[in-house]
Amino acid sequence: MTTFNISVKNLRELAELLNTVVGEAKFKFDKSGVIVRVVDPAHVAMVNAEVPKEAFVEYQLDGEEEISIDLERLKNVLKLAGSSDNVLVKKTNDKLKFELGTISKSITLLDNSVVTVPKIPQISSEFYTVIDKPAFERGLKAAEDVSDAIRLLLTPDDFRARAASESEESEMTIPKDMLKEINCKSPIKSLYPLEYLLKFVKSVSSAEDLKLSFKDDYPLTIEFKFGGQGLMKGLFLLAPRTE
Amino acid sequence: MTTFNISVKNLRELAELLNTVVGEAKFKFDKSGVIVRVVDPAHVAMVNAEVPKEAFVEYQLDGEEEISIDLERLKNVLKLAGSSDNVLVKKTNDKLKFELGTISKSITLLDNSVVTVPKIPQISSEFYTVIDKPAFERGLKAAEDVSDAIRLLLTPDDFRARAASESEESEMTIPKDMLKEINCKSPIKSLYPLEYLLKFVKSVSSAEDLKLSFKDDYPLTIEFKFGGQGLMKGLFLLAPRTE
Amino acid sequence: MTTFNISVKNLRELAELLNTVVGEAKFKFDKSGVIVRVVDPAHVAMVNAEVPKEAFVEYQLDGEEEISIDLERLKNVLKLAGSSDNVLVKKTNDKLKFELGTISKSITLLDNSVVTVPKIPQISSEFYTVIDKPAFERGLKAAEDVSDAIRLLLTPDDFRARAASESEESEMTIPKDMLKEINCKSPIKSLYPLEYLLKFVKSVSSAEDLKLSFKDDYPLTIEFKFGGQGLMKGLFLLAPRTE
Repeated sequence: MTTFNISVKNLRELAELLNTVVGEAKFKFDKSGVIVRVVDPAHVAMVNAEVPKEAFVEYQLDGEEEISIDLERLKNVLKLAGSSDNVLVKKTNDKLKFELGTISKSITLLDNSVVTVPKIPQISSEFYTVIDKPAFERGLKAAEDVSDAIRLLLTPDDFRARAASESEESEMTIPKDMLKEINCKSPIKSLYPLEYLLKFVKSVSSAEDLKLSFKDDYPLTIEFKFGGQGLMKGLFLLAPRTE
Repeated sequence: MTTFNISVKNLRELAELLNTVVGEAKFKFDKSGVIVRVVDPAHVAMVNAEVPKEAFVEYQLDGEEEISIDLERLKNVLKLAGSSDNVLVKKTNDKLKFELGTISKSITLLDNSVVTVPKIPQISSEFYTVIDKPAFERGLKAAEDVSDAIRLLLTPDDFRARAASESEESEMTIPKDMLKEINCKSPIKSLYPLEYLLKFVKSVSSAEDLKLSFKDDYPLTIEFKFGGQGLMKGLFLLAPRTE
Repeated sequence: MTTFNISVKNLRELAELLNTVVGEAKFKFDKSGVIVRVVDPAHVAMVNAEVPKEAFVEYQLDGEEEISIDLERLKNVLKLAGSSDNVLVKKTNDKLKFELGTISKSITLLDNSVVTVPKIPQISSEFYTVIDKPAFERGLKAAEDVSDAIRLLLTPDDFRARAASESEESEMTIPKDMLKEINCKSPIKSLYPLEYLLKFVKSVSSAEDLKLSFKDDYPLTIEFKFGGQGLMKGLFLLAPRTE
């Protein structure tokens, strides 16, 4: 029987991350761990998360398994726990049962055939920068009441995030020496929907560094580690906003 | 003249408890203390509270007295005080005057003949358990987004609280050795409206132990002590939900 | 070029104060500092604030300058900063640019000819008291759910604030020896709209003492110092509520 034990903190962060994009998710379990991939209904943002076996306190599986659940329900279950708790999860027929001390809670599984898993599109850019998450978040927040889109710019010398309306402008500028990594030969820029970025950055509370790759008017890729000891691996893809 | 001095904390908790059931209450003062009893308009939940003279800092009374007030107004007055304050209360003609440092506030008394006091129904069950309040509250919260009713079950071995919907189930199980007291020869169960229980448990913030008595499809009785040094005595009665 | 550097705390408090009365303000800069004066559309409340050069970390000016801005936008900019930060502000053509670490934000200036500056009316009273702000605020809060107007009363012996409705009354009484200063030969009283007073008192979080001057059915004048080291000087005028 599929049984696993995981820190509430890790599971909550994973649920929050996926829920920025979608309401239901299909988790694929195999002997090395769990992979889950979701795309929003408008196909603007995609998340891929990998939770290796090592990120679990206990991980027991008969072969492979697919488990589809409603993320809002999962978050409700985890609200009952303290952040330092672990939760024991068991799959029983058509339910997922969560055990938290004296409390157990079961949620009915969704039909796996109904929850579709998107393919990761073929996108790649050689230009990237690695930035401290709080710094990036400040730039996004500065743009929040200015516009619903933000322009990211990478030059060989710095990384910028800009928003403008008729009456306001915001700009974050992080010079090369304050970036953790940078690879850029000529300036690139692209415009992205702000709301998705804000929700994403807020959801991954434990992530420290974000690796942003993009090019002119091209999807943005954000790679990051999250969860305790950074054992979980995430990928966030965001389509550019065409002007 | 009726004058008393009581800790804001005690009076606030009493007001919160009564207000879970009703908007107006009649307080009966005699030489040994105050008794107040309220029932909700649908006659589903009843509260009886006894505040002995000893729970007051000062208690001065000419004979007996009945004082009817609006509980929302009482709570508004107490909001002006810190939780470590005492409040001096004086009855003057048709008003109740509260003195809090430099502030005094008067609220008009309600007509005693308009505020009815329910009789306590004749209910009794030999089956009961005494449970730690936070443990019980966890079970109620787990049921909150599942259903609007919760089934309580007492067996010789444990106490359970269960809720179920088409897609979710919650269950709290407290084994005998984690209960403070238990008296049950054969299993009993009964269904109760959840909202009243949640409001009740939240209101009595200082209560530690709750004594729950019930039997099959029968009213629930909760006895508890609350307030500073547990000097106030409360009784909460809740009609079963028929299926 | 007009450039100045000021603590975020001071600028935020100034913006909050002005915003209790109005949405847009014209700041007049000269070599000794800044003066700003606003009146609400109904001409009930007026604020005059003086920010001397010394209240700035840096203050650079070519001659005199008038800068009109939207206060809500200013407050939004300051939300991006921590309260111990300083903000560098530069005027560039038709914009005001704020620099906060890696973030810069520009807001478009309003047309100076559109933002009118009221004249301070000729009002004066020889009767006044100086009162600790938290004590005054308690009296206002006690009146909040009673009425939308509050009566201030000054006698040679005490200062009172009273509100009454059909079913409730509140009164704050501060005896002479608890007042910081008092000058009153015969009792005076006047009624004022409560909401303006509550908003005003809440906005000047750093003010310690308030000097209240008024007489029978006459405007109220409140003089106070605010900001770091009390370097900013404020005046709040409020028309009486006629009965």
